[in-house]
Amino acid sequence: MHSTITKIDAEQADFTDPLRSYRDRFDLPDGVLYLDGNSLGALPKTVRQRVAKTISEEWGEQLIRSWNTADWVHLPQRVGRKIANLIGAGDGSVVTADSTSINLFKVLSAALDLNPGRSKIISERDNFPTDLYIAQGVAKQIGKGHRLVLSDAPSDIPDMLDEDAAVLMLTHVNYRNGYRHDMAALTKMAHDKGILVIWDLCHTAGAMPVDLTGAGADFAIGCGYKYLNGGPGAPAFLYVNPRHMGGFRQPLSGWFGHRAPFDFDPSYAPSSNIEQYLCGTPPVLAMVAMDEAMSLWDDVDMTAVRAKSVTLCDLFIQEVDSFADEFGLKLVTPRDADRRGSQVSYSCDNGYAIMQALIARGVVGDFRAPDIIRFGMTPLYLKFAEVKQAAAILRDILETRAWDAPEFQVRGAVT
Amino acid sequence: MHSTITKIDAEQADFTDPLRSYRDRFDLPDGVLYLDGNSLGALPKTVRQRVAKTISEEWGEQLIRSWNTADWVHLPQRVGRKIANLIGAGDGSVVTADSTSINLFKVLSAALDLNPGRSKIISERDNFPTDLYIAQGVAKQIGKGHRLVLSDAPSDIPDMLDEDAAVLMLTHVNYRNGYRHDMAALTKMAHDKGILVIWDLCHTAGAMPVDLTGAGADFAIGCGYKYLNGGPGAPAFLYVNPRHMGGFRQPLSGWFGHRAPFDFDPSYAPSSNIEQYLCGTPPVLAMVAMDEAMSLWDDVDMTAVRAKSVTLCDLFIQEVDSFADEFGLKLVTPRDADRRGSQVSYSCDNGYAIMQALIARGVVGDFRAPDIIRFGMTPLYLKFAEVKQAAAILRDILETRAWDAPEFQVRGAVT
Repeated sequence: MHSTITKIDAEQADFTDPLRSYRDRFDLPDGVLYLDGNSLGALPKTVRQRVAKTISEEWGEQLIRSWNTADWVHLPQRVGRKIANLIGAGDGSVVTADSTSINLFKVLSAALDLNPGRSKIISERDNFPTDLYIAQGVAKQIGKGHRLVLSDAPSDIPDMLDEDAAVLMLTHVNYRNGYRHDMAALTKMAHDKGILVIWDLCHTAGAMPVDLTGAGADFAIGCGYKYLNGGPGAPAFLYVNPRHMGGFRQPLSGWFGHRAPFDFDPSYAPSSNIEQYLCGTPPVLAMVAMDEAMSLWDDVDMTAVRAKSVTLCDLFIQEVDSFADEFGLKLVTPRDADRRGSQVSYSCDNGYAIMQALIARGVVGDFRAPDIIRFGMTPLYLKFAEVKQAAAILRDILETRAWDAPEFQVRGAVT
Repeated sequence: MHSTITKIDAEQADFTDPLRSYRDRFDLPDGVLYLDGNSLGALPKTVRQRVAKTISEEWGEQLIRSWNTADWVHLPQRVGRKIANLIGAGDGSVVTADSTSINLFKVLSAALDLNPGRSKIISERDNFPTDLYIAQGVAKQIGKGHRLVLSDAPSDIPDMLDEDAAVLMLTHVNYRNGYRHDMAALTKMAHDKGILVIWDLCHTAGAMPVDLTGAGADFAIGCGYKYLNGGPGAPAFLYVNPRHMGGFRQPLSGWFGHRAPFDFDPSYAPSSNIEQYLCGTPPVLAMVAMDEAMSLWDDVDMTAVRAKSVTLCDLFIQEVDSFADEFGLKLVTPRDADRRGSQVSYSCDNGYAIMQALIARGVVGDFRAPDIIRFGMTPLYLKFAEVKQAAAILRDILETRAWDAPEFQVRGAVT
């Protein structure tokens, strides 16, 4: 079987794509088919000018006064509100701050504090490692015998939810294989056993609609630099269900989390609102880039985003199906759209070299050790014709064994 | 007594200033006498272009590949090395990361882990509040009865250093009054009692030479946005004495602190080097701005910086001496240059309104509750003539009671 959709069909799909106008709002280099927006989102065109203005006018001319006049001081809340709109979170329940790892440290500490007398933190062995590392760091510092218990498959999780589990901590969409958990069902199962739930939305926010409020999630975290296009190492976000506000819950108790930071009181009095989850002075340049990137989402229909994401993934899977077996590519992403995020991943031998050969031909995806090649589908700026072409280039590289050249075997610092 | 140095003298001092060429490397607005570089440093001219290039070329065109090709992944170490040169720290002992508050959380946690069986964290009631808040957060999370014990005056500290003290945690130069501790003497006194020492260099780095290695300091932290001019909310730095490397010491164990972050191992194995003190993905745009700002320091003579700082402070103090008593301004900064940093502060009634009136006249300093007006002296871009003029404007505002206008009583979110 050859390709399942003709070139004309893909171009027709692009022509009728309700999201097609968004492509022009990004700077994308010529000759690149960018299937790595799930690692670093593309550059929204207006970011450069906005950051330049912040540097020249707000920093350079207004200097310290901009904390008030440009309202730098409330950037974490302002950007948080824009993200809240995409993830089904209410006003005042999301802030943008720090990194995903640090935000997980905050909310996991808070969750364990809220659920004393239980010792297990349940997660998955295949969760993104930093989440597991942070859990180990929190448990070690608390020193009360909390332990991380890891499932080997999603289907094992329900049986692990017992009376000794304090927190269920999952990444909604798996970074390697793109598997997507059923957020509402797992949250309910956990709550039925008195377990609090933290959702990592790194591979979710901006890729599909989410309803944290509807699911009753306790906490959520996520990054700004993937589907949200906030720039490399963009500030992360965190969500706290309003029912968990108050108390002195999270230990990264910097001055921006104080009830009255500019009173300079020597004793910590936590804000009883989402601001308690702020810590130090916000990184203004990074926040402004993130704020500008988020302004692009004001009028985006998330249902259309998800529909296009599903079709992009289906198209890529169908195209690769025609040669996958011949070259030993094994689809590790669920075929069932209801069980996956917005990426398509294959396990294969020589995956690193294959990905390098793809990148050399302009198809930018990425490799995840030990054997996964990953293709991210970003509905705001990816075309159906590009996805079809990327699959064709993959086929050509496999057929010609182009990946078997010495220059494609050499690894960089970041693989 | 009127002014102690004539206008001609100040201009002569500017003409012979060995640092005068640096002024041209900053963008400073016309009509502003900027005496708040100890809160937010001025904009180095090359930062805008460097950040624009990073956005357009590295993010926009090279996209994800820049983690390798532009070596984004090692920005924390590269910027750290530049800061290390200014603070007497050896290679591989400083990284740039996160915020000052978060970095304090890391090193205080490590210090308490290294010094078990002791319960006190010694600091000052007048330390910058976020340092005290973070200590409260660390102590609460560890839950082993650590308590923060605060001195009311620097002279009280030596007697507080007893066998139950685990850590002495001080800001080298006080943010309010500019008092400067004797780093070497206090570190030695603490070490003699088996106490580890953390120095906060927020008001030190870039303002004067520091010798962390010579003093034998255990840990240090500091921010990038004051005398280092890294931009609003710039990434902070931290120093770890090489004798304290290794172990699983700091609990913010994100993937960038792992021995091999890109192996994606589910178990945390800490780097045995300074990288252990990294946590999540570094904020590239903010790091690049900081890196560019730090490049300005390559050939700066820190002895000349300190000499000019002392003279700038002396000049301002002398000028204000001529009218301070008449208007109730009390100098709270030590007259002895060996006991102060690079700022001059006064306590006074109506300090908030006086500072607002100064700002309206172009003299930008700041107010710190309840009654301190603060003037920062930044040797790289401040002129003697400006300091003299600022004092004259302060005098005029006091003589005319210009501060007693309604518009100067209204407080912003940040005071």
